[in-house]
Amino acid sequence: MPQDMTCLPPPELPQDLQISVLGPAKIPSDLRCGRFIPDDARIYVYVDPSQVPGGGPNPTLEMAGPRERIYFDPTKTRCAIVTCGGLCPGINDVIRAIVLEAHHNYKVSSVLGIRYGLEGFIEDYGHTPLELTPQTVANIHEFGGTILGSSRGPQSVERIVDFLERRNISCLFVIGGDGTMRAASRIVEEVNARKVKIAVIGIPKTIDNDINFVSQTFGFDTAVGKATGAIRCAHVEALGAPFGIGLVKVMGRESGFIAAQSALALRDVDFVLVPEDPFEIHGERGFLAALTRRLRRRGHAVVVVAEGAGQKHLQATGEKDPSGNVRLGDIAGLLMAEIAAHMKNEGIDHTLKYIDPSYMVRSVPANSNDCIYCGFLGQNAVHAAMAGKTAMVVSKWNGYYVHMPLTLVTQGRKKIDVCSNYWRSVLESTGQHVYFGG
Amino acid sequence: MPQDMTCLPPPELPQDLQISVLGPAKIPSDLRCGRFIPDDARIYVYVDPSQVPGGGPNPTLEMAGPRERIYFDPTKTRCAIVTCGGLCPGINDVIRAIVLEAHHNYKVSSVLGIRYGLEGFIEDYGHTPLELTPQTVANIHEFGGTILGSSRGPQSVERIVDFLERRNISCLFVIGGDGTMRAASRIVEEVNARKVKIAVIGIPKTIDNDINFVSQTFGFDTAVGKATGAIRCAHVEALGAPFGIGLVKVMGRESGFIAAQSALALRDVDFVLVPEDPFEIHGERGFLAALTRRLRRRGHAVVVVAEGAGQKHLQATGEKDPSGNVRLGDIAGLLMAEIAAHMKNEGIDHTLKYIDPSYMVRSVPANSNDCIYCGFLGQNAVHAAMAGKTAMVVSKWNGYYVHMPLTLVTQGRKKIDVCSNYWRSVLESTGQHVYFGG
Amino acid sequence: MPQDMTCLPPPELPQDLQISVLGPAKIPSDLRCGRFIPDDARIYVYVDPSQVPGGGPNPTLEMAGPRERIYFDPTKTRCAIVTCGGLCPGINDVIRAIVLEAHHNYKVSSVLGIRYGLEGFIEDYGHTPLELTPQTVANIHEFGGTILGSSRGPQSVERIVDFLERRNISCLFVIGGDGTMRAASRIVEEVNARKVKIAVIGIPKTIDNDINFVSQTFGFDTAVGKATGAIRCAHVEALGAPFGIGLVKVMGRESGFIAAQSALALRDVDFVLVPEDPFEIHGERGFLAALTRRLRRRGHAVVVVAEGAGQKHLQATGEKDPSGNVRLGDIAGLLMAEIAAHMKNEGIDHTLKYIDPSYMVRSVPANSNDCIYCGFLGQNAVHAAMAGKTAMVVSKWNGYYVHMPLTLVTQGRKKIDVCSNYWRSVLESTGQHVYFGG
Amino acid sequence: MPQDMTCLPPPELPQDLQISVLGPAKIPSDLRCGRFIPDDARIYVYVDPSQVPGGGPNPTLEMAGPRERIYFDPTKTRCAIVTCGGLCPGINDVIRAIVLEAHHNYKVSSVLGIRYGLEGFIEDYGHTPLELTPQTVANIHEFGGTILGSSRGPQSVERIVDFLERRNISCLFVIGGDGTMRAASRIVEEVNARKVKIAVIGIPKTIDNDINFVSQTFGFDTAVGKATGAIRCAHVEALGAPFGIGLVKVMGRESGFIAAQSALALRDVDFVLVPEDPFEIHGERGFLAALTRRLRRRGHAVVVVAEGAGQKHLQATGEKDPSGNVRLGDIAGLLMAEIAAHMKNEGIDHTLKYIDPSYMVRSVPANSNDCIYCGFLGQNAVHAAMAGKTAMVVSKWNGYYVHMPLTLVTQGRKKIDVCSNYWRSVLESTGQHVYFGG
Repeated sequence: MPQDMTCLPPPELPQDLQISVLGPAKIPSDLRCGRFIPDDARIYVYVDPSQVPGGGPNPTLEMAGPRERIYFDPTKTRCAIVTCGGLCPGINDVIRAIVLEAHHNYKVSSVLGIRYGLEGFIEDYGHTPLELTPQTVANIHEFGGTILGSSRGPQSVERIVDFLERRNISCLFVIGGDGTMRAASRIVEEVNARKVKIAVIGIPKTIDNDINFVSQTFGFDTAVGKATGAIRCAHVEALGAPFGIGLVKVMGRESGFIAAQSALALRDVDFVLVPEDPFEIHGERGFLAALTRRLRRRGHAVVVVAEGAGQKHLQATGEKDPSGNVRLGDIAGLLMAEIAAHMKNEGIDHTLKYIDPSYMVRSVPANSNDCIYCGFLGQNAVHAAMAGKTAMVVSKWNGYYVHMPLTLVTQGRKKIDVCSNYWRSVLESTGQHVYFGG
Repeated sequence: MPQDMTCLPPPELPQDLQISVLGPAKIPSDLRCGRFIPDDARIYVYVDPSQVPGGGPNPTLEMAGPRERIYFDPTKTRCAIVTCGGLCPGINDVIRAIVLEAHHNYKVSSVLGIRYGLEGFIEDYGHTPLELTPQTVANIHEFGGTILGSSRGPQSVERIVDFLERRNISCLFVIGGDGTMRAASRIVEEVNARKVKIAVIGIPKTIDNDINFVSQTFGFDTAVGKATGAIRCAHVEALGAPFGIGLVKVMGRESGFIAAQSALALRDVDFVLVPEDPFEIHGERGFLAALTRRLRRRGHAVVVVAEGAGQKHLQATGEKDPSGNVRLGDIAGLLMAEIAAHMKNEGIDHTLKYIDPSYMVRSVPANSNDCIYCGFLGQNAVHAAMAGKTAMVVSKWNGYYVHMPLTLVTQGRKKIDVCSNYWRSVLESTGQHVYFGG
Repeated sequence: MPQDMTCLPPPELPQDLQISVLGPAKIPSDLRCGRFIPDDARIYVYVDPSQVPGGGPNPTLEMAGPRERIYFDPTKTRCAIVTCGGLCPGINDVIRAIVLEAHHNYKVSSVLGIRYGLEGFIEDYGHTPLELTPQTVANIHEFGGTILGSSRGPQSVERIVDFLERRNISCLFVIGGDGTMRAASRIVEEVNARKVKIAVIGIPKTIDNDINFVSQTFGFDTAVGKATGAIRCAHVEALGAPFGIGLVKVMGRESGFIAAQSALALRDVDFVLVPEDPFEIHGERGFLAALTRRLRRRGHAVVVVAEGAGQKHLQATGEKDPSGNVRLGDIAGLLMAEIAAHMKNEGIDHTLKYIDPSYMVRSVPANSNDCIYCGFLGQNAVHAAMAGKTAMVVSKWNGYYVHMPLTLVTQGRKKIDVCSNYWRSVLESTGQHVYFGG
Repeated sequence: MPQDMTCLPPPELPQDLQISVLGPAKIPSDLRCGRFIPDDARIYVYVDPSQVPGGGPNPTLEMAGPRERIYFDPTKTRCAIVTCGGLCPGINDVIRAIVLEAHHNYKVSSVLGIRYGLEGFIEDYGHTPLELTPQTVANIHEFGGTILGSSRGPQSVERIVDFLERRNISCLFVIGGDGTMRAASRIVEEVNARKVKIAVIGIPKTIDNDINFVSQTFGFDTAVGKATGAIRCAHVEALGAPFGIGLVKVMGRESGFIAAQSALALRDVDFVLVPEDPFEIHGERGFLAALTRRLRRRGHAVVVVAEGAGQKHLQATGEKDPSGNVRLGDIAGLLMAEIAAHMKNEGIDHTLKYIDPSYMVRSVPANSNDCIYCGFLGQNAVHAAMAGKTAMVVSKWNGYYVHMPLTLVTQGRKKIDVCSNYWRSVLESTGQHVYFGG
């Protein structure tokens, strides 16, 4: 994990980080330049020797890239792409990279775009798949979202594999979050049970950057850039009134990376509240007292809160969304009410401006950094599938593109390590430790 | 009024469009180039002959610009600037232009920046004024908001004029909305009653573009650009899910110009709801039925609603904000609840994404178009004040910078004329007339 | 002409500002809302009474907009669009607006997109026209340039009209500069000579904003925004070195509007050199002496030069480009050489950074302001053509969309009036009059 | 090195990667949160086991971060910052981070900003240093460039150290390129010879991203984003004319990273020419033949050329700039002349549009990604200096902030490895290998 976004120590590594294959690769690749990556090329998991568990050897991950021999005969290979869950900058870039790589460099016979997530596999919904060609994807990277559409929630694994068999799909590319990766695992199980030869490759996607063993998820950098813009506005509003408070809510259900990272980008934020670092609202060391001191000293304050922060102060809603996620309580609403009451008591005639950039951080086109990243993810996904790899995801780790077992990314959630120097830097940039007494 | 933003016919013009002066101007200006504007230079109010009332002569407005003779001796002139009400892109540009013009071209002795709106005149608040020099304003145009801070609500007119007398201010520049312009009028009355020589010049500011006899308020163009970005995101989100609905709320308490204009900029919007054009929610010709038809036909829909639209469907809150404006009911919340219930009835498994760009459309720096506009407003305000004009605002009308009596801009509110070709163009761009049957 | 971009007094108006028509309009329009514009609705040419020539009546121009009766039967109407000359932000927006208006509101049978300018009419080039539908133009406004492609230079008028007849085109929309408008005039003559009924409507396009009787050409605002960004970089570079000079060249062959306007937008520029205001390079009142004084006083300087400025100091190249424009001498190169020699003489160890944003100001998508403008231009062009108007252009004048005879816009070139308050404001913002002694 | 920007294998590592210290650190730090980094914390140099030279142990680098004991007594510590060489996005962010960290977290007594690079140390130039406080740096990150100014070329090392002694500076922070890092080494030697206790910390800066053992230099990501915008314009221009060619020149004297990376970001580029991969202009496998084939097949082409590419085709200029770099030949000019001649021969009536974004890619403010990066670089530089480290640079390697001996980064230049998968990806994205036959 990069030091500038340190997170909780990775969960204990499973013993086996080997990638499953459908069978021996035999067909020679036809790469025109560059070099093939040998199948035994691997990179170290840990860069910091002190993190290697138990003094044992440094575990390794399989390096991604084109293989000298491939498993599928391109002329007979049909691929499919499906995009699931919430939007994220760069999905179209991944789709485009898969299509261009599959068509131009492997010359596969077809790439099918499944509409509206897993629904698109189920005929009853009536979502006709799209045939994706270099022509149809030529300009899609200039647009946010996904040209395939998306949806949430599970569908029958049997019917999904029925679809794949009926359409003669050899390689399935699944772009989605951890729920989707679990669905991909179940598809693998069904594929194995039927003894059919279908490679299933995941490309993990989450705007919250909370996927284990993925240094930074694609689109996250773009989202931080947009969140930073919202915070800049909140800062301007806070400066614009006596005792002005700018309150910004950003995405981050269980991991506050967007909040933390955008606070670091601007360094004009006074409080960052994230799910990983619980805080009190009342009392001497509570948020309201700290905010009051800050207002009295500087005349204004900017507060950034991740949507999942401070949930202990809210009654559990009990509701779930279609993806099965618990609906979060409204922390921003609570803070506004508490601030209003507290400031009235304190006799501070404050002005609070609330900004929720919501979907505006995720529906935009990817910035150039994410474009490049998504391009490599898509290309490497095709290399992996064509080589007959399956039940794996493409990821970037320690600066290298790697193959990881699907199970690795779904066994936990990446969070901010509140004891890390990363979080310390955030606290230093806000100065909130002085107030919270942390 | 420009045809691409036609509004209700202007209220009947008062008989006297003459500008008050403090006395005869005597001191020669010292312009190094260009030409002076003669004091009797005027432009026509109406460009469309059919709008001239009663077949009479076309009324005229005084042209703004530098005068050959000025009233105040620059070396003894002290100016003050105050910014009131909500933020708007370009306030800092106006401040900067006033300071640069006053210092560089008239060489006045001082420009004072009043902090936090009218509060800054009242000593009890403890807001010390800033001395504004070309140095202090050098970079402020790169930032949104107002470096002076702002506040809402009235203050004692007597104490304001006390301040002006005590500080020996000759020219007061007031940047604010219609409430502020009414306060400026009362300051003029008090100034007149005391028989002191203080020029009071208003620069009308409103993000809603709802000021009479101002073709387009400064900052509005920037705000529309930002609102367009929010709508683009809503469009992406709507396309990203089966039966996806993107709902965007934008500013516009009584006039829906931001909603209408940004819909025209993108032309991917399906419904624009504004205060000026009442709509039904239920029934065959209601919004829900129209939305349902649109969803069934196109699979997705984008709805833009001005905050003040559809208030008849909401219980009056009775509350008022510090500026005295009635707190609006939550039309977006109502629409979301109604849509959820209706779609459930219709058996449409929709996905609604709500975006409220809120202050993000107004706290940003001005775009180049607004920068230029604000620069001219500030310069012309100084020209007017130095010439001894008072009780007036600087505005742009028919492409010319003009002087208007303060009373002219406060006697009503500019609104979209729903019978105009402007509104027809909006309706054509959305196609909602087909559905509403309008 | 708007006061904030005053230009030379318009050339003497021709006596006849009436618009030609193909014949009486008979078929009723089918507008669903809004109101029709009566055929005799006109607006005043002059807003400033002092500009009306000879004390006569204020001349008027025909107002654009939908007519109650139209000339062409939509179901039998085939349209064609052609884009000529250099790129400009917003061309795709105009195309899209024409296609959407023609299809959705008039339901014409076909809109043909001619490829690569006038070449597209000549079969030998092999450019197959595109059939344009709402589907094909859905996203084109998100891209700069023209989806049709463009080219420069004339083609046989006979063969163009042959094409129109063969393809059964009733309405031809020509988007281009003054050369193109002259070509459109010749097409009209040939059409008239053949006594066929084809409406020819021009939409004037020029990045230099130099078309007579067009307040501001579409795309100009976007270009100024981009040029401003380049100047901001030059300012940063100039500040970054001892005696730093930032030199920016922008478009502007005969009219320096981009240079002047972007200097006003940023107000951090020290010298603006435009074709309209000749300057000396050497001597006490020359550019080099002024630059040296500025450098000595402020330590840095920013110079913006329009490509057509100072041509008297350069040997005529004698060459012409494919549009027949004389190739300009390299003023930026000359200035750099002269500055280097002069500073060496003066013993100033300067650092000069040269920035030429070139095509980057014109190949970008239109900003929201230009999007709206282009949308209205396209719609009004369709209204005019369907009503049987011909030999005219759609323009915006005094805030109104109007019809003007084709001949009006081609009889001269709009330039900055160096005696105007507009140019004075530029000079005040740079302070160069103090140095040039102007 | 990250796999998505693979470069030539690092030069053989010197045996000693230990960091010099001024003496034992004894004063306890006063960090309020987070954890200290032990002085023996190190990270592996190689992530790919196959790169470890000679089967030996994986060499390690010292981890950056706050130390439990520091060397300098903050209350008596005076720091100085100097910025040298060309501009780069993020310099102001690094300055701001150093000032905020030194003031807020260590409470040093003073931070001095040296004006205009090494010139600022030499009194004869008359550049008075700036006292930098949290107040003076509050908003500087919103601006490109360096608030300190910069200059090129060497100055007397003796006089520099004289300055440091006279001003009682304990910690010197040097932001600059490889020439500057060599100057820093010489300053260290002089400091050592005088046996004074001054920590010298380098923060490597180069827009070309060509510094050894720095994964990616700060500002590079921002520059790529801007270069991508220029290429997008070239693509639009190329599409806009029959046989349209868009030619873009970007920075990259000896390393073509900006060219390669921005081509990957957009993936609409047809040819990328970099210094590392020589090419022929003429002949069957030459650039002109390849370009012609591409034009014939696709009708347009986009060419991106790094300024240092193809120098073998140009006569050596022999000239040097003030930094001692050889002035490069004008490859873009050569290509344009050659293309014009060749296309005339081939009978292709092409249109070439040339775009040189030049300084516009480097004078802009840092994007959020670079802001965060620069913030950490500045903070870690202060941690290192306060701990008494010297003769080192702060860098990021394998995702960790590390200390490296100054000598390590100056012993060679990072270049694109043309045998790498990174370059292969570029070639695949352009398809030029098919044409060049590479």
